[in-house]
Amino acid sequence: MVATPTQDILKEAPNVLPFLPLLYVGWADKALMPSEIKLIREKANEMNWLTASERDLIMEWSNPAQPPSPELMGSWVKLIREASEKLDAGSRQSLADLSLQMAESGVATTNWDSPSARMAMEEVELALGYVNFKDFRNILSDQQRERLSEMEQIPCFDAAEMTQLLEGEQAEMKQRMRQLLADPEFQLRIIKDKEAYREQTLKWSKMMAAQGLGAISYPKANGGEDDIMLYATVFEMLGYHDISLAIKFGVQFGLFGGSILGLGTQKHYDKYLTDAGTLDLPGCFAMTETGHGSNVRQLETTATYDSQTEEFIINTPNENAGKEYIGNALHGKMASVFAQLITNDEHHGVHAFLVPLRNDAHETLPGVRVEDCGYKVGLNGVDNGRIWFTNVRIPRENLLNRFGDVDAQGNYTSPIPSLGRRFFTMLGTLVGGRVCVPMAGLSAAKKGLTIAIKHSLKRRQFGPENEAETLLLDYPSHQRRLMPLLAKAYALDAAHKYLLKRFAKRTEEDSREIETLAAALKSYSTWNTTHTLQMCREACGGKGYLAENQFADLKADTDIFTTFEGDNTVLMQLVAKGLLTDLKEEFENTNFWELFVTYGKQFAESISPFNDSGNTGEEHLLDTPYHVDLFKKRERKMVMDLGQSIRRHRKMGMNPYDAFIRCQNDMIALGHAHAERVVLEQFAHAIEQVENLELQNILDKMCDLFALHTIEQHKGWYLEKGYMKTDKTEAVTRIVDKLCAEIRTEANCLVNSFGIPEHLLVAPIAV
Amino acid sequence: MVATPTQDILKEAPNVLPFLPLLYVGWADKALMPSEIKLIREKANEMNWLTASERDLIMEWSNPAQPPSPELMGSWVKLIREASEKLDAGSRQSLADLSLQMAESGVATTNWDSPSARMAMEEVELALGYVNFKDFRNILSDQQRERLSEMEQIPCFDAAEMTQLLEGEQAEMKQRMRQLLADPEFQLRIIKDKEAYREQTLKWSKMMAAQGLGAISYPKANGGEDDIMLYATVFEMLGYHDISLAIKFGVQFGLFGGSILGLGTQKHYDKYLTDAGTLDLPGCFAMTETGHGSNVRQLETTATYDSQTEEFIINTPNENAGKEYIGNALHGKMASVFAQLITNDEHHGVHAFLVPLRNDAHETLPGVRVEDCGYKVGLNGVDNGRIWFTNVRIPRENLLNRFGDVDAQGNYTSPIPSLGRRFFTMLGTLVGGRVCVPMAGLSAAKKGLTIAIKHSLKRRQFGPENEAETLLLDYPSHQRRLMPLLAKAYALDAAHKYLLKRFAKRTEEDSREIETLAAALKSYSTWNTTHTLQMCREACGGKGYLAENQFADLKADTDIFTTFEGDNTVLMQLVAKGLLTDLKEEFENTNFWELFVTYGKQFAESISPFNDSGNTGEEHLLDTPYHVDLFKKRERKMVMDLGQSIRRHRKMGMNPYDAFIRCQNDMIALGHAHAERVVLEQFAHAIEQVENLELQNILDKMCDLFALHTIEQHKGWYLEKGYMKTDKTEAVTRIVDKLCAEIRTEANCLVNSFGIPEHLLVAPIAV
Repeated sequence: MVATPTQDILKEAPNVLPFLPLLYVGWADKALMPSEIKLIREKANEMNWLTASERDLIMEWSNPAQPPSPELMGSWVKLIREASEKLDAGSRQSLADLSLQMAESGVATTNWDSPSARMAMEEVELALGYVNFKDFRNILSDQQRERLSEMEQIPCFDAAEMTQLLEGEQAEMKQRMRQLLADPEFQLRIIKDKEAYREQTLKWSKMMAAQGLGAISYPKANGGEDDIMLYATVFEMLGYHDISLAIKFGVQFGLFGGSILGLGTQKHYDKYLTDAGTLDLPGCFAMTETGHGSNVRQLETTATYDSQTEEFIINTPNENAGKEYIGNALHGKMASVFAQLITNDEHHGVHAFLVPLRNDAHETLPGVRVEDCGYKVGLNGVDNGRIWFTNVRIPRENLLNRFGDVDAQGNYTSPIPSLGRRFFTMLGTLVGGRVCVPMAGLSAAKKGLTIAIKHSLKRRQFGPENEAETLLLDYPSHQRRLMPLLAKAYALDAAHKYLLKRFAKRTEEDSREIETLAAALKSYSTWNTTHTLQMCREACGGKGYLAENQFADLKADTDIFTTFEGDNTVLMQLVAKGLLTDLKEEFENTNFWELFVTYGKQFAESISPFNDSGNTGEEHLLDTPYHVDLFKKRERKMVMDLGQSIRRHRKMGMNPYDAFIRCQNDMIALGHAHAERVVLEQFAHAIEQVENLELQNILDKMCDLFALHTIEQHKGWYLEKGYMKTDKTEAVTRIVDKLCAEIRTEANCLVNSFGIPEHLLVAPIAV
Repeated sequence: MVATPTQDILKEAPNVLPFLPLLYVGWADKALMPSEIKLIREKANEMNWLTASERDLIMEWSNPAQPPSPELMGSWVKLIREASEKLDAGSRQSLADLSLQMAESGVATTNWDSPSARMAMEEVELALGYVNFKDFRNILSDQQRERLSEMEQIPCFDAAEMTQLLEGEQAEMKQRMRQLLADPEFQLRIIKDKEAYREQTLKWSKMMAAQGLGAISYPKANGGEDDIMLYATVFEMLGYHDISLAIKFGVQFGLFGGSILGLGTQKHYDKYLTDAGTLDLPGCFAMTETGHGSNVRQLETTATYDSQTEEFIINTPNENAGKEYIGNALHGKMASVFAQLITNDEHHGVHAFLVPLRNDAHETLPGVRVEDCGYKVGLNGVDNGRIWFTNVRIPRENLLNRFGDVDAQGNYTSPIPSLGRRFFTMLGTLVGGRVCVPMAGLSAAKKGLTIAIKHSLKRRQFGPENEAETLLLDYPSHQRRLMPLLAKAYALDAAHKYLLKRFAKRTEEDSREIETLAAALKSYSTWNTTHTLQMCREACGGKGYLAENQFADLKADTDIFTTFEGDNTVLMQLVAKGLLTDLKEEFENTNFWELFVTYGKQFAESISPFNDSGNTGEEHLLDTPYHVDLFKKRERKMVMDLGQSIRRHRKMGMNPYDAFIRCQNDMIALGHAHAERVVLEQFAHAIEQVENLELQNILDKMCDLFALHTIEQHKGWYLEKGYMKTDKTEAVTRIVDKLCAEIRTEANCLVNSFGIPEHLLVAPIAV
């Protein structure tokens, strides 16, 4: 037991002062753990400005065999309180801040100003479990406590400025959409009967067309503005409205009109595109068949050329080859039908044909059979149906002939000789959908987050005795549920904007890269939408289950986003194949596989022991370039390992198909890793450009949370591969908790910044 | 390069034979990895029966500087093929089997029969990546390949026997329910209009009551059979039917009738219980209020005793104190209303009162206001509403007075003096719901799994060139999605049966333990239902989105299971508190906290280095006692750590409430760990009792998959805490893949064994 008055001792050993908060917290449970003792002593030893007697004192006060007396602890509290009074009330402080404040007020030397001193103290703080300044309430003076509660009222950043920042070039169209959707005609309503609901959706779609919004991506000659970015923005904004309308809009203007624009030629534009854009010609995109969804190449519908009459005969060879889930099937007058083109007994693969479905009286034409798909999980305002064709004859010019044509005599020509390349070029016209769909999905996720967060800032449940009940968002479990998803929504927002810009400016050269990117982001983002909405519904409890609070529709309508426009699981495998091809190209002109093995081995060796795998300093752990590096290394290692596995299977005599199948789970995991890397890079890049430092600061925190939360989810992998050590992964968890608590204070402002049209936030619990 | 004929060499070194399959696979990619070489050599060195020249040969053939010539590899293939011909065609073999077969056919010594030899070979096999015998197709003779495809046709176990085993004592009631629900009156239908749907549900409920099934848990005097197990079985079976019916049934007979049975006395039974059981008295369970859901103790509705008239005055003090989400609110004639009992100006806490709602003409009585909750995510066949009371007077005897009574003069008496204990005793009557709800949820999950698995055994998509397309369930990604969930459904089935039995036989002594168990299983199981159904919907692609294939209702109806009957997040914290109390009791009569710290330190030291943390042998990794031990250690470590954290916060001066809140995320994680441990233990225990060895064998595999898949999910934790090493966690992943592939072959039989009423499996994709 130490008896001498502490202050006297400390006059002789001022550099021990900054250690007091740490020692206090460490001893507070009367059991300084061996690792904690070790760390405190280590740090003291590293600080070469400490005198021998200062070191001795730290050794003494951290001696587990001799715990400090209550009197000694009391004297520490007094000193800590004095220092804490000098702390700036305008910001949130940590234990390390307090330590350094003690140094400032009591120590003559300037050694404590160095980054390494701060890092050392932060490392100890993390090891002790993160402690916020506020947690010292019990040792604070009354005056300080008052100041603290003032601090909690600090107004957040300017949400309008953040909205402006997020909307960038699209601000004008977003504002226009906000105004349009505020019109009473667009008021949201619950319509359970599918026929009535479909009528409403059609009516809304016509209003959109009347505004010129349907044709906006078409050439000016066809009533458009030739602007795919504007189209995507309209679609994104519809994600805040009724999502049946968004999909109906996408089917008509994006898929049907888009197939004419992407696969047809001028004659088709002249004849059909303008009417598609005004909705005078409602149409379908009839690609998927009951038997073939993901595997488009094996579609069974045939389009056989008859040179006698210069017609194509569209035919469904069996019941299972009927077109399936076709949007607009009940309202449509015409369909872009994907079928195997056969001429002169030769097969030329899948092409698209414009096939009339109904006459002016809206009766189906001879040979056309349409069935309603009936009720669905959601999107019941969209008229999905099945369509079969029995030898339906259409004129030769109804072939959308941009990538393949048939002359009167039935001779086939194409600017792309390879059957495979031609197929993938045509399919490339689908990429637009993959760029846009997740944007509307993200809108839905943002809406869900806004409702759940606003609810959790009003709803109280349970609390300390005789005090007000606690706000839901003040529960760490609630912060853990919602804050990482909020950060991810911001991160995805940046990534989607990046992809959209790349897509709008795509050339033949970078089109494969963009396709891979679109596939990865579509999957990653739509899975996130499903997950986010589920978490938000649960976070709102019973209130979340009532239709009036929006989750019924938000969840049900977006559920299919993970399936349509390319099943996510299939797309992630496409991503992996794309990355393997990139890797192969990297090694081109050398003996690929030999080099591969060598490189792989070097790579494996170079990372073990990995730089910094044990560094748990806060500054290091909050370093964005370090996060990006970890994400990159993961992606790189996974693609290398995947390449090696496939090679191994091939050498064992497996055919390529089987070898890929064997590695399917690794491929899907790689797809995720790729998406994560791109999202982080683009989010970080966007933040770098921000000029407003206050906004940049909060976005930086969001970026840290997204990165570290993702790393935490993969900590098993990082540990297995030796990229991180266990004390580091444990530190990551503590920092994620801390970031969640920090971002919680800005949560309301962060959701307000989404710029969701106010009148569409109709959930009673959110207003 | 080795030139001498291999067979001659091997005559002199026969013990090298078993290494050939491993060497072949290892060299097949022309790059034996350093870790693989090391392992093969290590194992060879451990086998003391190998001669020096045999060891030399293995060193030579595993020398990375001198890869085997094509001729040498060819001669290995020949020998492997010969051995493989002798393998039993009736079972699935691995690389290690092949190795041991080679030993049997070519080696004189019996050393190879030892378990350690098998373990060694399996360890190498795992390091090389699991290789099934089938993967050797390329080195097999034609005859063998034919035999292989026969093997794939091997019929699975007898599903009817498995059903019998699973249904046990409840077989009779399950059969009765199957027959009842097969009646055309119970045919499933889609009704979108909520009023019409509610009428249908009410009609069905009356039919159930007419069968005597509503009252089945009530005393015989009230038309029942006094059998809670039968009640739970009926409810479980309704999970296969329309879940609105299940909930309507539960509200009327379980909650309303149950509150009379559990909280009332004989006079209430005589007057109301029989009519509740026949549905002549439709009733509500009015506990939750808009302002207070989870925090029942703070309900605001009051029941003030007026001794003048011997009446209670039931009053809703403010709009937000209205009863919320009350099932049967539109059809009900009476409600069990939970309110703060006040008599002689004294508050005695929450009690239940029977309050008439409507007259014979079904008009609401004066002072009663009811509003429809409107459409919900699902369960639209249940009439949930809000109820407010304005000074509604009810006779004194309408107090359900089992745990607290008021005499004519207004004097309060209770057999339980402590306000807190009384409250929790009354709430204990809710436990029945927590036992039953997840059982119906599991039925929904089983139905979803059945539909998704049957679809995946019919649906083909993509495939090797010029061959039939691949069945979905032959994709490893599809197996990974569905097989662990199938195993978990079986595991939960065992756990729910265990809980139900314990609950039916509960005494005052074990009631707290059972409440903790019910809270843990309710949360764990209903979260699993939500997750399972989402995975199944996605696994069925677009077809899963059509209402006809059931996922629309299955998902929407069960979504609230994670919230009602106790919010899962809140329940998991209750579980953690229960476990902390257990721990405290364990240390009772000693200085708890001191002992705690000491014990914690010992505990921490004893596990590092942890036994077997690096053992990657297959036998070890498939050892159920080892799995149970890992689950137990995790739970134990988490509860110890939690105790320490809370203690640390308390010592820092935090109040108990804040200290718990700070540890909230750890509490929730502990709740999960507890549930997982119980589920595994009970599943393993149930399997031990199985007499039919064939069934036991497949159940064992399911148990292994459940255990290892769970361990894999927590691998980050196991690595962080030092319970496992990285080569072990990597081996776990490989075995999970392998088990998924093995169970896939029995998947159809495994879902058939659920015994789901055939006519309720109406999904077109599942028939």
